[in-house]
Amino acid sequence: MALPLPIALDAMGGDKAPESVIQGARLVLRDYPDARFIFFGRESVIGPLVARNRQLAACSQIIHSDTVIAMDEKPSVALRSGRQSSMRHALDAVAQHKACAMVSAGNTGALMATAKFVLKTLPGIHRPAITATVPSRSKNVVLLDMGANIDCTADYLVQFAIMGDAYARAVLGLDDPRIGLLNVGSEEMKGHEEVKEAHKILRSGTIPIHYHGFVEGNDILEGTTDVVVTDGFTGNIALKTAEGASRLIYETLKNAIENSFTAKIGYLFARPAIRMALRRYDPRKLNGAILLGLNGIAVKSHGGADAKSFANAIKVAIKLVENNVNEKIIDELAHVVDADQPEPLAVAQL
Amino acid sequence: MALPLPIALDAMGGDKAPESVIQGARLVLRDYPDARFIFFGRESVIGPLVARNRQLAACSQIIHSDTVIAMDEKPSVALRSGRQSSMRHALDAVAQHKACAMVSAGNTGALMATAKFVLKTLPGIHRPAITATVPSRSKNVVLLDMGANIDCTADYLVQFAIMGDAYARAVLGLDDPRIGLLNVGSEEMKGHEEVKEAHKILRSGTIPIHYHGFVEGNDILEGTTDVVVTDGFTGNIALKTAEGASRLIYETLKNAIENSFTAKIGYLFARPAIRMALRRYDPRKLNGAILLGLNGIAVKSHGGADAKSFANAIKVAIKLVENNVNEKIIDELAHVVDADQPEPLAVAQL
Repeated sequence: MALPLPIALDAMGGDKAPESVIQGARLVLRDYPDARFIFFGRESVIGPLVARNRQLAACSQIIHSDTVIAMDEKPSVALRSGRQSSMRHALDAVAQHKACAMVSAGNTGALMATAKFVLKTLPGIHRPAITATVPSRSKNVVLLDMGANIDCTADYLVQFAIMGDAYARAVLGLDDPRIGLLNVGSEEMKGHEEVKEAHKILRSGTIPIHYHGFVEGNDILEGTTDVVVTDGFTGNIALKTAEGASRLIYETLKNAIENSFTAKIGYLFARPAIRMALRRYDPRKLNGAILLGLNGIAVKSHGGADAKSFANAIKVAIKLVENNVNEKIIDELAHVVDADQPEPLAVAQL
Repeated sequence: MALPLPIALDAMGGDKAPESVIQGARLVLRDYPDARFIFFGRESVIGPLVARNRQLAACSQIIHSDTVIAMDEKPSVALRSGRQSSMRHALDAVAQHKACAMVSAGNTGALMATAKFVLKTLPGIHRPAITATVPSRSKNVVLLDMGANIDCTADYLVQFAIMGDAYARAVLGLDDPRIGLLNVGSEEMKGHEEVKEAHKILRSGTIPIHYHGFVEGNDILEGTTDVVVTDGFTGNIALKTAEGASRLIYETLKNAIENSFTAKIGYLFARPAIRMALRRYDPRKLNGAILLGLNGIAVKSHGGADAKSFANAIKVAIKLVENNVNEKIIDELAHVVDADQPEPLAVAQL
């Protein structure tokens, strides 16, 4: 499917920008030869880099932006003083329907604040959520919020559940995604008030999603549900703890092998199988966290992303556009409103 | 050092009780031949099991308890109706100075509620915290709270920092443990109000601990600090997520090796080194979470603990007694009061 509009790229955001952004776009053309791009940033820097590749140059436009938002800039300052920044310009392009999506590897807080200001939230959604996809035992699991909202009301959590459902349908292609709510136990009496209240609403059957119930920390990577909903504080810590744990085990095994001669010999035989198995966990393949719940598609790439990794973030944006994720969220929210009427549209099976 | 009093054991709590409890006690005698035990539970069941081992029988007493608190009993119900339970009797023994510590693999919520009621919190401590030790890159890290307190004020977090410090000194033998506060970023503006307020107090220098500052999820297993302080909701989810992540990577590698003939051959060579490296992460060696902050030592063993695992929980209790962890907490709290002058625990006023 050809994309209706070009994709706006913040060419200056991220540790390896602009090279990673431009090379990332070039890589995307292999899978999406019809894609078009608008690069925002310093024209004198970007221009020559884009011109190097004929195919890329043919489908790209460059729009000069004077400033760049620093990686450690406060969101409030970035919002006020970043009006001429590459990040802001890329978001403006989406708001003005000149681009179908935007991708940035820049400052997360600044992107969140600016995106919310420029794009506004979808009708019925109070807060956007940073949505990530993580590999679990047998499949990828959608996790939100990963840090946009430190304190969440029950209503926010319910909205995240609806957005997570729409995302899992649109991007993972699931027919009936199971939604879990992260808690410290599966019993109803556990957890804080917001979580208990959200559980009550989700369980009531008025929300047209397949609500599984509470899940615990270990359930995230067990893949007990397709979507895990939590507040941004807990979600951020869970995600980073999981990354830390995986790295620890991986490095422990690596060191064990490297420090033993016989183990090293053994590893020569085991390596192809191990590499293949770990390929699923390549963080570059999972790059691209979505700012879900906005009037427009904005994707956050990891700040340290290389070209391959940034290309993946662009592909996430393309999938969101192709699958009309926002229309699906709006649709589901319309059903929730309808559910207030006598006839319930609930599909939740508990 | 000979223990001043016997250790009270809830012989009926846990999935593999009473065998795991009695065999666990027997294993402890190898390292602590002078230890003495009081087993609480059904005398007709425990008696013959203890009698089988002459050494154990010689240093053990059995006190009959009529009832057992079910693993799924609500804490409030357990507290009201469990007065004749093995768990309650073991806690009573500590409160009445007939035992120097108690260990139970029973219902966590019930143990928490009953221990708080029977033992009461230490002067200056508002809430006990479940304290765990987890393996990090280079050493073990103390993590609290792991689920006792879902909602925590800044004061609670500050008290946890003090208790974590005393614990790291007493049990891990550290001279100057570094204390971190779990957050979603290292910048001061991040996190919810309680975390920011606790950070301000800990940073002010009025608390006699080595405060490192904020740490993130990945720092837990990196071992960035010796102690990580957080609320019970986040701590429980972080711990379980880490367990899930470790298991996922481990099983992925195991399956990769088992499904490939050459990898299997290779593994024969690598196995000894790998097994040795993973030994540190054997969950049985880490069993024993402490209910820190109470007037008496109470240790919670994992519900599914086997004898070896339960033995470790008993050893944790012994270390806490030998190292006077509670006296150290009281001492540190006294310093806080001194630093602040007028009334005890005016930490909130900062």
